[in-house]
Amino acid sequence: MTAANPTLMVDEFLAHALAGDTRLAVGIAMGLVDEGFSADTIIAELLAPAQHQIGERWQRNELSIADEHLATGITDSAVHAVANAYEETGTTGLVVVACANGDWHAMAARMFSEQLRYRQVVTAFLGASTPSSHLGKFIDRHRPEALAISCSLPFSFAGVTSLTDVAHSRGVPVIAGGRALHGAPARALALGADAWCNDVDVAVVQLDAWRADPPHVRRECTPLPSDAIELDGRAHEVAATALDTLAIRFPSMASYDTRQISRTREGLADIVRYVAAAVLVDDPEVLTDYLDWLDVALSTRGFPPTAIATGLETLTPLTTEICPSSASVAHLGLAHLTAASRP
Amino acid sequence: MTAANPTLMVDEFLAHALAGDTRLAVGIAMGLVDEGFSADTIIAELLAPAQHQIGERWQRNELSIADEHLATGITDSAVHAVANAYEETGTTGLVVVACANGDWHAMAARMFSEQLRYRQVVTAFLGASTPSSHLGKFIDRHRPEALAISCSLPFSFAGVTSLTDVAHSRGVPVIAGGRALHGAPARALALGADAWCNDVDVAVVQLDAWRADPPHVRRECTPLPSDAIELDGRAHEVAATALDTLAIRFPSMASYDTRQISRTREGLADIVRYVAAAVLVDDPEVLTDYLDWLDVALSTRGFPPTAIATGLETLTPLTTEICPSSASVAHLGLAHLTAASRP
Repeated sequence: MTAANPTLMVDEFLAHALAGDTRLAVGIAMGLVDEGFSADTIIAELLAPAQHQIGERWQRNELSIADEHLATGITDSAVHAVANAYEETGTTGLVVVACANGDWHAMAARMFSEQLRYRQVVTAFLGASTPSSHLGKFIDRHRPEALAISCSLPFSFAGVTSLTDVAHSRGVPVIAGGRALHGAPARALALGADAWCNDVDVAVVQLDAWRADPPHVRRECTPLPSDAIELDGRAHEVAATALDTLAIRFPSMASYDTRQISRTREGLADIVRYVAAAVLVDDPEVLTDYLDWLDVALSTRGFPPTAIATGLETLTPLTTEICPSSASVAHLGLAHLTAASRP
Repeated sequence: MTAANPTLMVDEFLAHALAGDTRLAVGIAMGLVDEGFSADTIIAELLAPAQHQIGERWQRNELSIADEHLATGITDSAVHAVANAYEETGTTGLVVVACANGDWHAMAARMFSEQLRYRQVVTAFLGASTPSSHLGKFIDRHRPEALAISCSLPFSFAGVTSLTDVAHSRGVPVIAGGRALHGAPARALALGADAWCNDVDVAVVQLDAWRADPPHVRRECTPLPSDAIELDGRAHEVAATALDTLAIRFPSMASYDTRQISRTREGLADIVRYVAAAVLVDDPEVLTDYLDWLDVALSTRGFPPTAIATGLETLTPLTTEICPSSASVAHLGLAHLTAASRP
């Protein structure tokens, strides 16, 4: 008999999760517990990669949102089962783990929180979408030593700063991470966080350092470009105007049904929000990464390859009017699309 | 030693959950498993009442949303722990459990799904916010024998109908329940469901009946009053107009800061949405129950007792213009407020 290896069991776990078989999927995770694997390893090498694959298969139109919800609910069960299988012996001060208001993707934050807990860190997991005003009361009551923010989508950038400002106003330092802050610390720092982490070990080292030598946290709010905030808030209005322009340019759109129109408008609004998010952290890759993602998502759903460039082109004068600094981001996005489409 | 009683342990469970102590809270639930209590009893008599109390204490401003998220995350762990402690031996066809698009309150649906599973029903739990278009693909792939919809908030009424229509178009019958459909079948039936349930035993009896004698499901969409749908969609616009009127009537509002203004506008939009929801199911109690709830929520947050009536009064001509049948609902709401304020 060969030894179990969590990495090699991702496909099997996923097959059970997508078939809706909680017992078999959770059984794989718990079998690894019985083999002596740590909760941490099972999360990092089995459950997180499974979630990642679900996202990729959704992008390629191989799964519906319903499939994704089914499998995510089962992964959630597995995370809980694995986490409940070890005793926590935390002895640190409290670390609050939260997602920004409007960020409903709590799974990564849940995994991160359990991984911290496994490393003897006392955590309070607040889960999805925490309004910043409520975080303040919570901090006053529980006096945490740090706030950890998980950010899955660039849509939540401004929300990350709101949570950060609330923590800072009470002297609490902030560490931020998550998919939308990947690669380097710059985005997290631009949003006001005191530190960035790309994995739980980096986070633990930083939290230990803060415990040994409590940082001086600036009390002032983090300045964000207000025109980008405004652009984000007006994304739907901008999308509606762009849709009118597109309808004149492409008379064939007259045959769109209500659902197609509303999807196109939502798609345009999303692009606007990514443009705004790129300006917020001064990083055009926020937009270009999204355009690459969108290219796969739309082409597997039968949209013409030029749809994205046409949309972005139509949006650019409108976004520039509200947020002048979005012009360079949008032009980099267009150049990126042109380069990508060259054979 | 006295025997354990889940009902008498709700306060203790809640105290640990609100203190963020997962180990102690989950320990109480698992202690009951060891004593021989069923997952079903533990959910129905310990965990569901705990969640209910969290909601009530939030309403009375005794908890922040952050406290509620912390405790809900821990209740979620306890539900999973209890559910993972029994083997499922389901032998029925598949029952899909879902919440409508935009309904993020998945906890009740999760509990319901585990209670079904405990009764040997094979379930696929789709969790929060399922878009109806994606449900269709899921049904085509998994061929369930029924769809169970959990509806926590009247905001999701139209979403319940969208999910129902998708199931019906594929010949799948729908049972609906949840907090927003409480008391009697009328609301669930008005939204197109084939049956209503107020608890899991009622649901199982219905599902068994359908299995023995598959129902003839009508394929047509459920008609909903389109003016109420429009009113719901324009709630924010209506609220903004009402806010302008209020600002003229109450010059003191000039001193409101941006956050107070935005909260007032959101509060007005919520009232509009409850008016629309009441029209959708032709049940003024949707509104009057909300007004009672709001009365407690606002008075414990220091708002004057007349604020709700003033808001509703200002909104009524605006909602009536878009949705004529909302006039009688709004007037019943105003009469309810007057009766309630009489000593």
